[in-house]
Amino acid sequence: MTETKTRSILKSLSWRAMATICTILLVLVLTGEIHLAISAGLIEVVLKLILFYAHERIWLKVPFGTEQDAEKAPAVVLWLTGLSGAGKSTIAKILIQHFKSQGERVQWLDGDVTREFIPATGFSREERDRHVLSTGFTARLLEQNGVNVVASYISPFRETRAKVRAMCKNFMEIHLSTPLELCEQRDVKGLYQKARAGEIKDFTGLDSPYEPPDSPELRVTTEGRTPEEVAQEILDKMRRRYGTNDAS
Amino acid sequence: MTETKTRSILKSLSWRAMATICTILLVLVLTGEIHLAISAGLIEVVLKLILFYAHERIWLKVPFGTEQDAEKAPAVVLWLTGLSGAGKSTIAKILIQHFKSQGERVQWLDGDVTREFIPATGFSREERDRHVLSTGFTARLLEQNGVNVVASYISPFRETRAKVRAMCKNFMEIHLSTPLELCEQRDVKGLYQKARAGEIKDFTGLDSPYEPPDSPELRVTTEGRTPEEVAQEILDKMRRRYGTNDAS
Repeated sequence: MTETKTRSILKSLSWRAMATICTILLVLVLTGEIHLAISAGLIEVVLKLILFYAHERIWLKVPFGTEQDAEKAPAVVLWLTGLSGAGKSTIAKILIQHFKSQGERVQWLDGDVTREFIPATGFSREERDRHVLSTGFTARLLEQNGVNVVASYISPFRETRAKVRAMCKNFMEIHLSTPLELCEQRDVKGLYQKARAGEIKDFTGLDSPYEPPDSPELRVTTEGRTPEEVAQEILDKMRRRYGTNDAS
Repeated sequence: MTETKTRSILKSLSWRAMATICTILLVLVLTGEIHLAISAGLIEVVLKLILFYAHERIWLKVPFGTEQDAEKAPAVVLWLTGLSGAGKSTIAKILIQHFKSQGERVQWLDGDVTREFIPATGFSREERDRHVLSTGFTARLLEQNGVNVVASYISPFRETRAKVRAMCKNFMEIHLSTPLELCEQRDVKGLYQKARAGEIKDFTGLDSPYEPPDSPELRVTTEGRTPEEVAQEILDKMRRRYGTNDAS
């Protein structure tokens, strides 16, 4: 705990003003002697200004009851995996807003955004793997530095997700298990249509496999539920596993 | 600024104990009446406990002079570029220690470490570029989240470094311009010997080019200087550009 000496001095003065007026009135009421009351007040000002300042500075050495003393929930990595159109980005955005509203550091890692910055990343198995591993490494470093991570990646391969899990500490694999038919029906980005027309190759769920997690921390469908409900379920699960600062 | 109410209450009590003893002695000395002094003390205890607690809670609303109020120097990305053996990692370690000793968040990104986590990264121009860009993207995210970054990468290509610079905000390109002859003579990892023997291909400085920066924020040789001196020069330059919390 630190604060500047100027702050301690200003605080001492503001307290003295209030407290000495109180003392003068008190002595006046008890004795009825105005001169005595003012003398007491004047001596008190000098003595207690020094005393109060010392008291303030001593308490700054005591971490009890301060922000630094509060037990912070650790940073977590929420890894959303699932088909294109399963609802990953939509739910990620709600999760991000939640962390921000709690005043916590958080970074959204999204497949589409990462690919803008790291070019020449295609969709072959090898390229996907490298892209996911590279993202996992970034998530690891952010987590280690106290930044929560929400990652929304199709990340179709079990083995690659296991490697990412091994890199991170507080890792939650969240499988958005929205059925392929529904994802294709939604087709938010028009990608299924393009893939069906043969304009996109290696499209997960069609001509490239999606390997669902065997034992994710959470498996949840967005079918017949609002994104807010799904996000809430993820946050509840997270709280049970890692605790939270929400009560603060 | 937050602190728990329990802390404010304990602080109020500890102050009251000190201050009321002081008041009782003061009234006793001024009037010579022990009963009056004790009455004054007792009334004061009740009145001022409440007053002090209120005063504490009000000051918690005032950010002036607190840590949150202090102007924090922004996070920076110190990008060390230069030949193998130029001293990048050695100097990076000293820089990292400096940030830590200041209580600042900092992450070291090092070519050798990153390559452990993201496999299948070779040394062709394309593979180097992707590796450096991927690192640059990680540096960007760490910087955005208030984590300082020290990156030690050969990063031989001007264009690629320019892309990394464009991704980050407070970016300092630091060219460790130790001459090739000296790097080869040091040959800490025995890589020059292997490259000369033809065991390593695409070795920067030998059969792969190094494009020195045209206008780096700092160009410094480790020839005839200790790593500590070079690190100090980098830190001085950084302070002049971005300010520092050192005075706090």
